[in-house]
Formats: sequence, structure tokens, C-alpha cells
Amino acid sequence: MNTNSRGIVDASAWWERDGLRRVDGVLTLAGRPLVELVRGTATPAFFYDTQRIRTKLEGLHAALAPMDHRVFYAMKANRFVPLLCFLRETGLVGIDACSPEELHLALACGFDESDVSYTATSVSESDLDVLARHPRVHVNCDSLSTMRRLGARCSGRTIGLRINPGVSVSYGDNPKLEYAGVRTTKFGIYRDRLDEALELANACDLEIDTIHFHVGIGLLTRGLSAFADVLEACDPFLRKIPNLRRVNVGGGLGVPHRAGEDALDLTEWAQVLENRYAGRGLQICIEPGDYVVKDSGVLVLTVNTVERKRETLFVGVDGGFNLAVEPAFYDLPCEPTPLVLRGREVAEVTLAGNVNEALDLWAEDVPMEIPREGEHIAFLNAGGYASAMASNHCMRGGFRERILRSD
Amino acid sequence: MNTNSRGIVDASAWWERDGLRRVDGVLTLAGRPLVELVRGTATPAFFYDTQRIRTKLEGLHAALAPMDHRVFYAMKANRFVPLLCFLRETGLVGIDACSPEELHLALACGFDESDVSYTATSVSESDLDVLARHPRVHVNCDSLSTMRRLGARCSGRTIGLRINPGVSVSYGDNPKLEYAGVRTTKFGIYRDRLDEALELANACDLEIDTIHFHVGIGLLTRGLSAFADVLEACDPFLRKIPNLRRVNVGGGLGVPHRAGEDALDLTEWAQVLENRYAGRGLQICIEPGDYVVKDSGVLVLTVNTVERKRETLFVGVDGGFNLAVEPAFYDLPCEPTPLVLRGREVAEVTLAGNVNEALDLWAEDVPMEIPREGEHIAFLNAGGYASAMASNHCMRGGFRERILRSD
Repeated sequence: MNTNSRGIVDASAWWERDGLRRVDGVLTLAGRPLVELVRGTATPAFFYDTQRIRTKLEGLHAALAPMDHRVFYAMKANRFVPLLCFLRETGLVGIDACSPEELHLALACGFDESDVSYTATSVSESDLDVLARHPRVHVNCDSLSTMRRLGARCSGRTIGLRINPGVSVSYGDNPKLEYAGVRTTKFGIYRDRLDEALELANACDLEIDTIHFHVGIGLLTRGLSAFADVLEACDPFLRKIPNLRRVNVGGGLGVPHRAGEDALDLTEWAQVLENRYAGRGLQICIEPGDYVVKDSGVLVLTVNTVERKRETLFVGVDGGFNLAVEPAFYDLPCEPTPLVLRGREVAEVTLAGNVNEALDLWAEDVPMEIPREGEHIAFLNAGGYASAMASNHCMRGGFRERILRSD
Repeated sequence: MNTNSRGIVDASAWWERDGLRRVDGVLTLAGRPLVELVRGTATPAFFYDTQRIRTKLEGLHAALAPMDHRVFYAMKANRFVPLLCFLRETGLVGIDACSPEELHLALACGFDESDVSYTATSVSESDLDVLARHPRVHVNCDSLSTMRRLGARCSGRTIGLRINPGVSVSYGDNPKLEYAGVRTTKFGIYRDRLDEALELANACDLEIDTIHFHVGIGLLTRGLSAFADVLEACDPFLRKIPNLRRVNVGGGLGVPHRAGEDALDLTEWAQVLENRYAGRGLQICIEPGDYVVKDSGVLVLTVNTVERKRETLFVGVDGGFNLAVEPAFYDLPCEPTPLVLRGREVAEVTLAGNVNEALDLWAEDVPMEIPREGEHIAFLNAGGYASAMASNHCMRGGFRERILRSD
């Protein structure tokens, strides 16, 4: 958030976009004043802008248009049922599922088995029993163990291999979000066992048609050269698969979380993919989650306490980090902003949740018009990995969700 | 875990105690082989040893016997209903609640209003409406805002003040667990506004009979001198309250999480309290959570994958960090150990959960008899802040719980 020379919070903040902007100081989502929407519900309340989601998906398809491609939405980012039903209705995506329950929920929302790409880790016997009952779900195996046990159940099945290039790649600076770096991770089959995996596939009568990899989170334009390096490092795996039809480059497309972060340039991103895969007869699959939903979502909380404690002006709200763990645990903030700007004095405030843990802070020392008790604060970028990871810690887990449609 | 000179995991590990030990290599909890208990259920499964809980509570009461005292169990640590009912049945504790839902659950389990000590933060109007309907619940106010709004509803009520001494205290080395250090936290009333709080209490007709503070987590014997310093720093607050009857020193009593950590010496701990409060006519209240339940609980998971990836031997299990966030986010490990020792080869293994996040590791490179797929691993110290903070991330949130009774 920017303050101008008079100390007034600037109306054109870094996060404004079509569908999320201030009109005469009033924050609107999907063209609707959030202050009015919140009157019709209780807080904590998540609102999701479906038009934003559609725009994101259309952007991905447009960028990938020169290539044969498919988009699988990573359900783990947000599985609010009306949102999943909306996604089904668009016809623009399949589902990336990572557990039997996610698979069941995708089917429940009207997706077909063939719309589901399933990529899991530490796969149990009962997980495999479920997959065996859904033969048209495309399973990417991330270990030899999974291949062996899936093969025993589903001879003749076509699968993907999740591989791990094992190169150091970092789109940002957060080691918690490293998926396939120098440190050996639990994900995928490394180069040293690829031949063994191929022999196992033959022995189990599993046909490999897809190479899958997912090597990081939060890809923005600045990370594209690292992304190109990843594709290069994965190529030796691709070249070992005789009947390869598909490469699934996973998820990890990011959205800006802070002023100064540039959004992902989709044209440049698609060009990286084209440079690597054009003319090879491969279908390109992607599994965006956050990219599709994160900046569609806003969490609205009610201010219940405004109180200075020593040098810090605390603004207490009626929801805590258990509703959105990324600010506290992943250093991915949910930008706070009042639902209404009133031209009041601006001060640095610390936004505190209602969970009895010291780390339950939404943001520290951010400039904001000083709110009053009973008013509301919007937390932006709350559409992904927030409600989906919510807990009932301290029994402060209640919330409402609502999709906003413009059609 | 220790390995002896033959590389065999030592049968007498640091965590063994009455009720949790190996008998001929078989791990027993509450005297019962976990490998048999788990046959009667599905994993993930939490088991809680009620005798351990009773022993812990009896130890606290014995240590505090020279003083007028009360023990309030911090429900946020574990709210499994049979466990709460067991606690009620013992008659040894009241409940420390921090939200309206926790209060309701305490009452539902048979606790009386007068058994509940309520200490919350960022308290909302609707929270206060609930408290107003339960006049015999003892509320500790942690801000002037809460006092003002409670007073408007409940003139004449007797309350506590949660205060914050504002001194640097660290029982361990983890900044995430700092509650009242040099950094200003959201909790409590600092010294600079104490007079204002007392005037407000007068103006609102609230009678202050209790001073409450809670300044850290994980207190073991090595932290006792820091604890004594905290009590000293809080004393000026106590001396300002004319009709003080009670001091509530909060929770934070710890249990060892690793080999080499010494348990809290209750005699020494009680002596610190006696040195400070003896002869002052005060009732001493404590709010242990983890201390009561953490080492009573074991999470049992099933191994589904044993596979070397580069230099790392991964053991994949059917539950992830969403069932117990402390290993991944708080650097508080749940010690892993097989349900049965078989005299097999010992190797360093990395235990990986089934959630699609790189940080979903239970333990890295720990020596263990190499398990086989289908066998079980126990994760110790899973009795507190595990199931209570569980999420359904990746829809991997299913689990069972069971209390073990010896009566």
C-alpha cells in the first residue's frame, strides 16, 4: 500500500485490477461493494470473484493456444464446492487431484473421470484401491513403489511418471517452497532410477505416456529463466520414453503478494514452453492452483479491538491464522486494506487475529487509515490455500464462503 | 533414538516411561501393544493414555499442595470429547477456554461455568454476548477494549486482567513461541496503561480479583530462572491491585521433545512459585495444556512406501503435517519409532507424509530399523496441538482418536 505526500493512503494501490478496485473509496469485488456484501452475512467471510477466475483461465488458454494443451485446476488450492461447480461449468479445466477424497469431490461436482489428472505422494493401498475403481483417471506415479502396486491392480493402464530433475531451482527465496532442489525431496523419480522405472513399467504392463514434474511455487516473470533451466534439466527424462504423448509441467504459477512484484508475463512463459516443446508432438499440461484462484478471493474480517500497546497500534480482528496460514507460516502475506477509505489519519498498524498464539498476526506495522471497532478489513489474495487449509484451532474455525458471479 | 554399538536401536529410548515402553520389542501404551490396538481401527489413529494424563495432573497438584491453587486445562491443546469427559471425571481440573465454542464444549462435557477460566484475544462483540450469558465464567481481559465492552454488558462482574510484563523471556530458542518478549505482542495490558485499566475498571464497575499472564511455551527445568524473572517482572502489576485474590501464571509447562532434554522438575518449579507468592494470601492458578496431554498421545500411521531417492531413504506414511503441524512449523518433532522392533538393519530414514508439499516431512535422516510397506510407525508426543489443529489440506484430513483407560 502506498501513502502519498499528505499521508493519505493512495487510492490506486498495486493490487487494483479489473473487478477489484476502489470506487469513491469503497472497495469493490466483481463490481460490488464488499461493505454491502458483508452486511448480508457474518464474518469471517470469503468472497470469490468468478469473473477473475475465468479471465485467468482464458489468459492461460490464449497464451498456450499455439500448442496442444490442457489445463488441470489444482483442487488443493480451493475446493469450495460452488467454485468447483463454476469451474466445471466453464469447460476450461480438468482437475488435478492428489487424494481419493479430492477425486471423489471432482466427480461429485460433475467432472468426468477423464477430466482428472491424479498426482499424489506416499500413496497407500486404499488410495490405490480407489484409483483401480476409476480406470479413466490418469495417474502420475511419483515412486517405483506406486508403480509396482498400481501395476498389480491395473495391468495395461496408461500412466504418467512424476520425475524429479534434481537441479537447484528457486523462483523466490523461501526454502519451505522448494520442491525439487539440491536437497532430495520426496517427490518424483530421480534420474538414477529412471531405467529401473521403465523396466518396472514393462514388467507391470503399465504404459507411460506422460512425464510430469512440479518443481517450485510462486513463478513470476523474474523466475522464467530458472523455469527454462528446469525444462532443460527434465528433457533427458522425456527422451527416454518411447511413446511419450504428454508433458505435464505441474503448477507453481504465482501471483504478486507485495507491491513491486511483477505479475507473471504469460506470453513470455508460454514462449519458454514453446521454445522447448514446439514441433515434438507433445501435449502440454499445466496444473495451476493459486494462479487461478488466489487473487480472486478476499477474506473480510470485522475489527473488534483498536488499541495501542506500547509503541504498536494493534487492530484486532475476528479471524486468525487458522483461516489462512500462508501469512504466518509461508511468508506469503494477505494484503490488508479497509473496505472503505474515509480520509482519516494514517498510521502504522499491526493486524492481530483472535487465536491465542503470538504468531497470529496478519501484518505488522503497515500504513492504514486507522479503523474503528465494528468496521471491516479485507485481506486480499485469500482465494488459494486459505479456506482449503483452515483448521478449527482454538475453535475459531468458523467462516462463510460465497462466489460472486457476474452473469 | 539411540543406536548401540551393533547399530541396533536401543530398546531403552529417552522417551520410555510408565505406560509407554517396549516389551520384547513391542511398543506398548497404557500397557497395551499398539500393534494390536491398530488392528482394530484404521490409520491415521491417535491413542491417548488417560493414566498418563492423571499422573501428570496428580503431580501438579502434589507439587502445588503447599499453596492454595487451581489447575485449568488449556482445552486448545486437545479437545477430543472423550478426553474432556475423562478430565471432568477426574475432578482434578477446570477448563481454560479461549473462544465461545470452547466454552460451550466445556459446558457440554459437564464442566460448570465456575470451572471455566476464559482468556481470549481480539474479543468480538458476539464473543462478549456469549460471556454475558454465562455470568459465573471467570473472564481475564487482555485489553482495555475488552474491559470497556464487557463492562457495558456486565456491570458488577469480577474479572481478571491479563497483563504483559514486557520483559525478554525465552524458555527455548524459537521466536515463534515468544509471547511476551521485547517485541510488543498482542497479548495483555502493558505497564504503561495499567493505571488507565484500573480507572476503567472502576468506571465500568468491574472488580479485578486476578492477575493473569502467560509469557512462553515449553518451560523445562533449564528455563526456571527465566520463569522466576518473569514472576518478578509481573509483581509490580500485582501490587497495584487492591483486592487481588488470585494470580494465574498461565500455561507453557513443557515436555521433552528430543533426547537430552530434561523434563520439568515440578518441585523446583513449585518452589519458584512459593518463593514469590507464599504468605501473600493468593490462590495460584495454572493453565497447562501440552504438559497434561502431549506425551499421553501417540499417532500411529501405516508405512505405504519405502524407497531410496538418491542418498535419502524415504519412508512414506499415510498421514501428513496437516494432522500435526508442530514438526513442520514449530520445530517440535513427534519422535518416530516402529510399533515393533525386529532386529533388522538400522539405517537413516526420512519419514514423509502424504500431502503434496515439500515441507511435509515428519523427520529427516533418523536412525531406524528399516520398515516394510504395510507396517506401522508411532509418532510420539502427538497428544497436544495435533488433532486440535488438524486441517483437511489436500483432503488428507481423516483420522480416528481413542482414549485408553486402565480402570
